[in-house]
Amino acid sequence: MLKKADLIIGSGERSADLRYATGLATPDDFLYFAVDEIRGAVLSPLEHDRALHSVKPGVTVFATADFPGHSFPELVAVLAERYRIGRFEVPADFPLGLAEALRGSGLTLQVRSGIFFPEREFKDDAETAEVRRGVQAAAAGARRAFEVLAEATIEADSRLFWRGEALTSERLRCEIDQAQLAAGAMPGGTIAAGGRQGAEPHHTGSGPLYAHTPIVMDIFPRLIDSGYWGDLTRTVVKGRAPEIVRRAFTAVREAREQAKAQLRPGAIPAEIHQNAVRLLDRHGFRTGCENGRNFGFFHGLGHGLGLEIHEAPRLSPGNTRPLRGGEIVTVEPGLYYPEWGGIRLEDVVRITPDGCECLTELPDPLEIP
Amino acid sequence: MLKKADLIIGSGERSADLRYATGLATPDDFLYFAVDEIRGAVLSPLEHDRALHSVKPGVTVFATADFPGHSFPELVAVLAERYRIGRFEVPADFPLGLAEALRGSGLTLQVRSGIFFPEREFKDDAETAEVRRGVQAAAAGARRAFEVLAEATIEADSRLFWRGEALTSERLRCEIDQAQLAAGAMPGGTIAAGGRQGAEPHHTGSGPLYAHTPIVMDIFPRLIDSGYWGDLTRTVVKGRAPEIVRRAFTAVREAREQAKAQLRPGAIPAEIHQNAVRLLDRHGFRTGCENGRNFGFFHGLGHGLGLEIHEAPRLSPGNTRPLRGGEIVTVEPGLYYPEWGGIRLEDVVRITPDGCECLTELPDPLEIP
Repeated sequence: MLKKADLIIGSGERSADLRYATGLATPDDFLYFAVDEIRGAVLSPLEHDRALHSVKPGVTVFATADFPGHSFPELVAVLAERYRIGRFEVPADFPLGLAEALRGSGLTLQVRSGIFFPEREFKDDAETAEVRRGVQAAAAGARRAFEVLAEATIEADSRLFWRGEALTSERLRCEIDQAQLAAGAMPGGTIAAGGRQGAEPHHTGSGPLYAHTPIVMDIFPRLIDSGYWGDLTRTVVKGRAPEIVRRAFTAVREAREQAKAQLRPGAIPAEIHQNAVRLLDRHGFRTGCENGRNFGFFHGLGHGLGLEIHEAPRLSPGNTRPLRGGEIVTVEPGLYYPEWGGIRLEDVVRITPDGCECLTELPDPLEIP
Repeated sequence: MLKKADLIIGSGERSADLRYATGLATPDDFLYFAVDEIRGAVLSPLEHDRALHSVKPGVTVFATADFPGHSFPELVAVLAERYRIGRFEVPADFPLGLAEALRGSGLTLQVRSGIFFPEREFKDDAETAEVRRGVQAAAAGARRAFEVLAEATIEADSRLFWRGEALTSERLRCEIDQAQLAAGAMPGGTIAAGGRQGAEPHHTGSGPLYAHTPIVMDIFPRLIDSGYWGDLTRTVVKGRAPEIVRRAFTAVREAREQAKAQLRPGAIPAEIHQNAVRLLDRHGFRTGCENGRNFGFFHGLGHGLGLEIHEAPRLSPGNTRPLRGGEIVTVEPGLYYPEWGGIRLEDVVRITPDGCECLTELPDPLEIP
């Protein structure tokens, strides 16, 4: 009777499934398999010794030297014979070229539909503590930005100056990122986008920053030791916020707090998203598209957070699967208008038996004097 | 007559092929296609506007809203019909799950064997300038490390102290990484491994650092703006290097310089690698494996460097394809012995018509007083 086995081939740095299964953060590709009660990782000489003392309990470390042949197809063929494996189940992101090579040598591969490890969606206390640390690293970045903006001066043309030179998105981002590193986390593609640049949710920001206009700061570092992510967005104005910005800020904050009050086991992500759209609309902030440009609130309300920056579950208009408890998600409504820019406020919460717990501890000031 | 088209689906941050083709560094997945004279990128509302002003010349930006349906399979089906495409050529790392969905809806996909864009292996002057900037960012990190080690004091038990506390691998790495950020580059998984930890080439280092024993620092940042990588390794001793370390250092430096003298169009990477092994052997530093532990020089001599940290060509024992000119490669021989640690010295060179040009400008001191 031939058995079926789990098979993942990738790098621990890039594949969250591999890191989840083995705890290993290798830069190079390695192989993980699980059959019967055996979970094994096969490592090259470069990684083998280090893996021995950093692998998750329950996973056996093998050396490629223990297998004849060197390529992954040869290695998988040996596994198939040694453990009498008839079928390998692989994740959806398994590389097609390698899959064809394996199939070409007579092996059977099947993509496991959906999430490879469904349990990754529900965080235990240890994982929750890691995400909380990730969010704290993001908050360290935001606090540094608050400091820099507080120290900055406003020039006659409303440009910001700091330490004798123009304060740019690049300079502010560097300060935010250095603070994240000091907190033990590798910065993601930090956003520090001012004025109209903030109207494009993924614009990272460039050039001089100005007073009296919103600066969106989206900060998402990954912990260097454990690989869990944090995520945080704050939007601030150096100086005085215009009336429209003040109103949008209030609406977005209300939308975020309403969503946090509604998140609980049984809640439908799509409904919570739509409730946020409706709340923003009631405040007079419409969502739509004109001349090919989107405006209003045109991204998902949030996403799962863990070993991937974006993972299940999505708090999106398309997700009608009820929450079950234990998920960690971002809550990040936003408003974007080409005329004046954007506002986004993002906290991270864990779904608890009777609601949700906020993992983010950071004020959300609109104005920095 | 049905045509064939290039197809890549992935994120610009993760897929070097996508970034090469489009110049876009999106966090989310998007679709790139090329058929006839058309090269197109199809972007979601979140990325569309930003893509318009950051896309490479010659690539047309489409909005997902311009296509009926929302999923990638629907989108590809529309492309197939609109442009009369009979076959899509995809890269080897195309995700298997998506490939099966596309094939399931009647589309023909074929993996292009080898490198998807073979021209990526040969860098033009603009790309060379970017890699040089990447190496300069790495050198900024190394210079900061030299400074910190020069300032550090040696305690009675040989531990290093700096700014009132024990100098650890983590602290030194943070200083190196912050300097890279200030130079406009995102740190990779910086290695700062002291003593016996340095005997494992990929050990990133942890805990207190000591005097009179080698510290391997491997620094590989990615430029935030263009996505090109730098790569650099230096090994230093705070205080006095033991005799064996001094001899190993001299041997590794000679191996690196010999390889640089031999790299030119027509040279065979495997031979240059073996020449390095032989040179180290002549210096009395054997390579081998005992009780499952590797020692000596047991990794490849170098690798291509560009939009990926490891790309073609490899300077490895298995690569017998002659160099052609225009490649950018690392040259990084090393010696590793569990008894005392490791030495690795890495420069980056570009293969020129009559040899190679070194892109790394940084001294390689063994001892820091």
